[in-house]
Amino acid sequence: MRQEDPVATTTEADAMRRAVALSARALGATAPNPVVGCVILDPAGEVAGEGWHRKAGGPHAEVHALAAAGDRARGGTAVVTLEPCNHTGRTGPCAQALIAAGVARVVYAVADPSPTAAGGAQTLRAAGVDTEAGLLAAEAEAVNIAWLTSARTGRPFVRWKYAATLDGRIAAADGSSRWISSAESRADAHRLRAEADAVVVGSGTLVADDPHLAVRGIEGAVQPLRVVVDTRARITLAAPVLDDAAPTLVAVGKDADTAHLPGVDVVRLPYGEGGRGLDIAALLAELYARGVRSVLLEGGPTLAGAFVAAGAVDSVTAYLAPALLGAGPAALADAGITGIAQAFRLDVTDVVRIGPDLRLTAVPTAVQEK
Amino acid sequence: MRQEDPVATTTEADAMRRAVALSARALGATAPNPVVGCVILDPAGEVAGEGWHRKAGGPHAEVHALAAAGDRARGGTAVVTLEPCNHTGRTGPCAQALIAAGVARVVYAVADPSPTAAGGAQTLRAAGVDTEAGLLAAEAEAVNIAWLTSARTGRPFVRWKYAATLDGRIAAADGSSRWISSAESRADAHRLRAEADAVVVGSGTLVADDPHLAVRGIEGAVQPLRVVVDTRARITLAAPVLDDAAPTLVAVGKDADTAHLPGVDVVRLPYGEGGRGLDIAALLAELYARGVRSVLLEGGPTLAGAFVAAGAVDSVTAYLAPALLGAGPAALADAGITGIAQAFRLDVTDVVRIGPDLRLTAVPTAVQEK
Ligand SMILES: NC(=O)c1ccc[n+]([C@@H]2O[C@H](COP(=O)([O-])OP(=O)(O)OC[C@H]3O[C@@H](n4cnc5c(N)ncnc54)[C@H](OP(=O)(O)O)[C@@H]3O)[C@@H](O)[C@H]2O)c1
Ligand SMILES: NC(=O)c1ccc[n+]([C@@H]2O[C@H](COP(=O)([O-])OP(=O)(O)OC[C@H]3O[C@@H](n4cnc5c(N)ncnc54)[C@H](OP(=O)(O)O)[C@@H]3O)[C@@H](O)[C@H]2O)c1
Repeated sequence: MRQEDPVATTTEADAMRRAVALSARALGATAPNPVVGCVILDPAGEVAGEGWHRKAGGPHAEVHALAAAGDRARGGTAVVTLEPCNHTGRTGPCAQALIAAGVARVVYAVADPSPTAAGGAQTLRAAGVDTEAGLLAAEAEAVNIAWLTSARTGRPFVRWKYAATLDGRIAAADGSSRWISSAESRADAHRLRAEADAVVVGSGTLVADDPHLAVRGIEGAVQPLRVVVDTRARITLAAPVLDDAAPTLVAVGKDADTAHLPGVDVVRLPYGEGGRGLDIAALLAELYARGVRSVLLEGGPTLAGAFVAAGAVDSVTAYLAPALLGAGPAALADAGITGIAQAFRLDVTDVVRIGPDLRLTAVPTAVQEK
Repeated sequence: MRQEDPVATTTEADAMRRAVALSARALGATAPNPVVGCVILDPAGEVAGEGWHRKAGGPHAEVHALAAAGDRARGGTAVVTLEPCNHTGRTGPCAQALIAAGVARVVYAVADPSPTAAGGAQTLRAAGVDTEAGLLAAEAEAVNIAWLTSARTGRPFVRWKYAATLDGRIAAADGSSRWISSAESRADAHRLRAEADAVVVGSGTLVADDPHLAVRGIEGAVQPLRVVVDTRARITLAAPVLDDAAPTLVAVGKDADTAHLPGVDVVRLPYGEGGRGLDIAALLAELYARGVRSVLLEGGPTLAGAFVAAGAVDSVTAYLAPALLGAGPAALADAGITGIAQAFRLDVTDVVRIGPDLRLTAVPTAVQEK
C-alpha cells in the first residue's frame, strides 16, 4: 500500500495530520463512500483551505477545501488522505477539479483501491501536477480501514464488539448481563455504533435483551442501519429495535413466515451451512448492496461464532470488565475450531483503560502481516 | 497502614527506593519471613551500608547493612522497608542492634503487623532514636504484599495465575492447551513461581498435563514447594512433579489410599463443602504451618473456582493471548456465583504487553478499598 520515502515537507506532514483528523469527523456518515480529509496549502505553504467529505452525494473533501481556498489554491499544494478520484459519480472527478484550480502539487496518503475511482494520480501527473503518494499512509489507512477493507474484499468491514468478564463470560449463570461492563465502556461503545453503517445482532440477543441498537448520547451521529439476524422471524412489531429511531432490517430465512411484520423491511436469505441460521456471506452481500461498508457486530456469541467461522471478522473490540463469574455463556461460541493449532490468532493493536475496564482492539494476524 | 506526611529528606526517599529494590531480590526466598531491605546513611547523608534479608535464619536486613556500614552508622540514619523487629527469634531483635550501633534516626516504610515482631518503633523511640514511619509505604507494601497479607490474615497470600484466550478459554475443545500463551509469557510465569513459596495445582491439571511445576530459567531461584491437591491420591510415583527438582506435597482426603506412594510427603485433609474435593481453608492452614506465606495457584479452573468461592484469592495474574477459540474450558469454573450482582469484582493494577500477549494483574476491589 504505502510508497517508500515520500518526499514531503514538514508543513505537508502537518497538513496531512490535520487532513486525517478532519476525515475522521465523518466516520459513519459517508457510506458507501470513504472518509476523506483535505488541506490546501498556498504557494507560501500557509493553510488556505480545509475540507472533508461529509456524506455521500455531497461534495468531496477536495471540493470543500478548494472552495475555502479560492484563488490561493493556484500554484499551491493539495494534501489529501486518499488518492483524488478520477470518475464522475454524483459529483465531478476531483482530479479534474484540482487541475482546474491550478494546484501545482498533490500529496496523498493512500491509493484508491476501487476500480472505478482509481487513476486519479495518473490523471494529475498527465496534467503536469507534481504528485506524491504515501505520506502518513498508516495513519490515514487506520481511520479509513473500514472503507478500504470493503473496497478490497467486496464485503463490508466487520468489527466484532463484546463486553466480557476476565474469565470470558458475557452473562452470569442466571442469564443476567446488566451490567457487565461500566457506564464508561457502554458510552464508548455508542461511539463505535456511531462510526458504523450497520449494527448487527442475532435473534438470541434479540430475545434475551430486546435491544434498541440506536446511537445515544453522541451529538450529530448518523444512526446506523439496525440489523437483526432472525432466521425464523421471531421478532414482533413490539420490539424496540423496530421503532423509528433508526432504520431496521430484519434478515430471515427463505421460507420464514413474516405475515406478522407488515411494513417491516425484511430480507430473505439462504440458510447457512448445515441449514443452521442464515448464510453469513449472503447477509454481508445484501448489506453491501445497500451501501453498508462497515458493520458493528454486537453478538451474541452464537452469531459471532458463525462470523468467525465464515472468516468475516476484520477487527475485535473487547471491553474486559475486571470481574470473575466462573459460570455463564462465553464471549464466543462454536466457530468450528477444535484444537489450539486452529485458534483464530490476532494482534493486539490497542489497549486502553475505560473507567474500571480495559478496551482491547485486535486484528487478525494474517491481515496485519499483509 | 500508611502514616500521613512522613517528614523525610530526599536523600532518605532515595535510600528507601533503593531499600525497596534490595528487598525485592529475595522474593520467594525468605519464608516464613518478610522481604526487607535496609540502607544506612552516615551523619553526612552518604550511603554507608546496604543489606537485605536473604533467607529465614540468616541475618536481618538491618544487621547486614549495619555490618557494611561499620562505625559510619553512629549518628546516622537507618532507612528500612519494614518496622525493625522487636523480638529475639533465630537472630536478635533489630531494634536493639540499631540502638547498639548508635543510629540516631530510623525511617521505615511499613509497620510490622505481626504480634510477635511488632513494637520495634516503640523500643527505638524509648531509647531516644528519632523514628519516622510511612516513607514510600505503598511501594514497600507492594513488594512485601504476600507476607503482609499473610501476617494480617493468618493464611498464605494466594495469587491465581492463568493463561487464556481473549474469549476466556484455557484449552481448546479437544483438550489441547500447548501453547495458548507465548514463550515470553511462559518465561514470565516462571518468575512468579520463583517469587512464590508454593505452587499449587489440582488433580485435574495433574492428570491432563502431568506438569513439573519447578522453576526453570531463573538463576539462583529458590524452588517453591510443589503442591498437588489430589483428594483420591490419583498421582503415581512416575509423575514428574515427584522428582527431586523441588520438594513436593500431595494433599489427599482423610480416607485416601496412599499405599502406592511410599516416601512421598502426603498430608491428609478434611473434605470440602458437600464432600467435594478438599477443604481449601484446611489446605492453606497446613501450608501456613509449613512456613508457606505466598502461594501461586496455577489452576486449573475447577480448583480456582473453589479458591474463589472460599474467598482465598488475593491477586489474579492473567496472561491473555490474542486468540479466539469459541470452545473449550473457561479459565474459571464454578465459584458459586449465579448472578452479575455477585460477580467477584477486581481492580486492574497493572497491564503489560509480554510478547504478543497481555499480562493483567488485578486485586479484589474490597481489598484495595481497605
Ligand atoms: N456482553 C455482550 O457483549 C453481549 C452482546 C450480545 C449478546 N449478549 C448476550 O448473549 C446472549 C445471547 O446469545 P446467543 O448466542 O444466544 O444469541 P445470538 O448470537 O445473538 O443469536 C444466535 C441466533 O442467531 C440466529 N442465527 C442466524 N443466523 C445464524 C448463523 N449463521 N449462525 C448462528 N446463528 C445464527 C440463530 O437463531 P435463529 O436461526 O433461530 O434465528 C441463533 O440461535 C444473551 O444472554 C445476551 O445478553 C452479550
Ligand atoms: N491455561 C492455564 O493457565 C491452565 C492452568 C492449569 C490447568 N489448565 C488446564 O485445565 C484443565 C484441568 O482443569 P480442571 O478444572 O479439570 O483441573 P484442576 O482444577 O486442576 O483440578 C480439579 C480437581 O481438583 C480436585 N480438588 C481437590 N480439592 C478441590 C476443591 N476444593 N474444589 C475443587 N476441586 C478440588 C478435584 O478432584 P479430586 O477431588 O478427585 O482430586 C477436582 O476435580 C486441563 O485442560 C489443563 O490443561 C490450564
